[in-house]
Amino acid sequence: MTASSAPVRQSSVRAHNLALVLQTVANRADQPSRAAIATFTGLTRATVSALVDDLIAGGLLVELDPPPRTGAGRPAAGLALSPDGPAGLGLEINVDYLAACVVDLAGTVRHRAVRPTSPAAALHDLGLLAGEVAAAASRDGLTLAGAALAVPGLVTPSGIVRVAPNLGWQDLDAPAVLGAMPGLTGLPISVDNEANLAALGELLSRSDTPTFLYVSGEVGIGAGIVLDGALYRGGRGWSGEIGHVTVYPDGRPCRCGANGCLEQYAGQSQVASDPALAASALGIALSAVVNLLDIGVIVLGGAYAPVFDQLRDGIEAELRLRVLTAGLSPVVLRPAVLGADAAMRGAADTVVREVRENPAAWLAPAS
Amino acid sequence: MTASSAPVRQSSVRAHNLALVLQTVANRADQPSRAAIATFTGLTRATVSALVDDLIAGGLLVELDPPPRTGAGRPAAGLALSPDGPAGLGLEINVDYLAACVVDLAGTVRHRAVRPTSPAAALHDLGLLAGEVAAAASRDGLTLAGAALAVPGLVTPSGIVRVAPNLGWQDLDAPAVLGAMPGLTGLPISVDNEANLAALGELLSRSDTPTFLYVSGEVGIGAGIVLDGALYRGGRGWSGEIGHVTVYPDGRPCRCGANGCLEQYAGQSQVASDPALAASALGIALSAVVNLLDIGVIVLGGAYAPVFDQLRDGIEAELRLRVLTAGLSPVVLRPAVLGADAAMRGAADTVVREVRENPAAWLAPAS
Repeated sequence: MTASSAPVRQSSVRAHNLALVLQTVANRADQPSRAAIATFTGLTRATVSALVDDLIAGGLLVELDPPPRTGAGRPAAGLALSPDGPAGLGLEINVDYLAACVVDLAGTVRHRAVRPTSPAAALHDLGLLAGEVAAAASRDGLTLAGAALAVPGLVTPSGIVRVAPNLGWQDLDAPAVLGAMPGLTGLPISVDNEANLAALGELLSRSDTPTFLYVSGEVGIGAGIVLDGALYRGGRGWSGEIGHVTVYPDGRPCRCGANGCLEQYAGQSQVASDPALAASALGIALSAVVNLLDIGVIVLGGAYAPVFDQLRDGIEAELRLRVLTAGLSPVVLRPAVLGADAAMRGAADTVVREVRENPAAWLAPAS
Repeated sequence: MTASSAPVRQSSVRAHNLALVLQTVANRADQPSRAAIATFTGLTRATVSALVDDLIAGGLLVELDPPPRTGAGRPAAGLALSPDGPAGLGLEINVDYLAACVVDLAGTVRHRAVRPTSPAAALHDLGLLAGEVAAAASRDGLTLAGAALAVPGLVTPSGIVRVAPNLGWQDLDAPAVLGAMPGLTGLPISVDNEANLAALGELLSRSDTPTFLYVSGEVGIGAGIVLDGALYRGGRGWSGEIGHVTVYPDGRPCRCGANGCLEQYAGQSQVASDPALAASALGIALSAVVNLLDIGVIVLGGAYAPVFDQLRDGIEAELRLRVLTAGLSPVVLRPAVLGADAAMRGAADTVVREVRENPAAWLAPAS
């Protein structure tokens, strides 16, 4: 029975169970057999077997060689996410560099490329880079399930970049532009804020920390707020603009029109020229975040990650001074696990996660 | 069949359906009949009738006189939340005043008392006030289902007040203290931050605004963050400490040990002596909130509500200057609907809401 020919209720049960089986394999490190999946999910062995067959046929699962026979009976073959099935293309565009990677269904980075650019050439260069990486994925036998782009700016839910001041973009229909690039034609394309995607990348790498603030220092500064394992996007999707939190109300003029924004004290170039001032300004703004949101973990990413040790003491001094609850429960500060790769990894992972969460949609056209 | 004698699954279905019927009556303005409730809920008329009988017997619903006969057939009697059933006692303790109210199941304030106090006498005075209001409720035929106390401080989920600096409290087991007060013995008692409860009170009064920041100006300043109709409490329940967001990093010393906290510029006495400075400081701190959380509605409550017109222009000027997305979508600023009553109303409503959401627990002891 295919998803499209089944009545709605039946098809949605099948979709649910396909996802359940796929997630069970994804979340376990022990390459479970069909029988083990039946035990974990509560589904019958016959149901599991039929679903597993569909997932193997659709290129989402692979059956591993059974272990050597050690006693009576035939050892059961284990199952794993397919390394040759659908993959996600993650793209990041920034003021001075572009990045692209391909992540397979199992979460492995299969291709990765980073290259310098300039705001004027960025879109053209991104097209070339995306085409190259897509071609490499294709040579590798991977099928791209979609592409996601990380942008340092305000993005609407449909992917329109309302403003990306450091790129000089305004009201750019980024999905349409990307969709016209060679190698990306016909692919589902999503666009999101780079700090949001970097925060998601970090979340996937450190599943033990479901609530944290991710701060991404580049030319501009953005933040991704992760609460209970989910990104908090805000009413219009424009949360996390920590770069424009006021640190010194009568301070340096910012290109946004205000004075004393964090970005004027802790942007990439300010960190290089005066790390002590940058750390103090970051500490003041981060104290506001903790006082408001009661978040216990702060992750420094982007350009902050490699200079974490230079910033740490200065930030922590401000947190101790300014966070009302610092004495009751200190704030943990740590560098991003993925470093500068976080945003493109987060982007690619959103594509892969969509397949994992809704495998029926991936299988439907083929069934 | 009573809740306690039924098997677990059956009893939980009954509990679910009791809540469904009660909420249906609560959420509709048209005093639906049993037949109408059956239509709205999809339950059979016989099931609805049995559940309604239990809810009437338990004092949660009342049957209204049927309207005059207008044609053939007997007009159906409408149902409404009982004004004589369980009620909630809401209490608020603050530096210079105490407040108490009793709210019935239908949400009507049945008793209300506000009286001045001092930090030294506050707990003693609260005991007297709570006893008086509880006695008045009892004379009125109401049964208190519980009490909730609003405190200007950091409260743990179990109701321990870790710190309430303006009251001089530290690690106070507030539920135990309240439980020993005459009139409150044996009642379920909960304790929460006053800005959180005020935000909940405001949410109940303005259901058209599910996401907003509530700022409560008293001697101290607190905030309640309401996202998609639910209070965001933070990792340890200590979110919303906007009074200690830094406005001027090298500014006035605060009793928390830091410099330049909002509380030093926009606390109750500062608003009275220099409303322009208070408005500007509030605007700077609120801009940080909007930049971080992308919240489009800010509600000014407590001591801010009566002087809203004096503060508005100064706050809005800072928001226009400092909120990155102000040009794309302006922030709405408005005074609290409930004014200074918000926290005690929110407290009483938490008790009533608990009964509405879980009527089976209320009926169980009597059945």
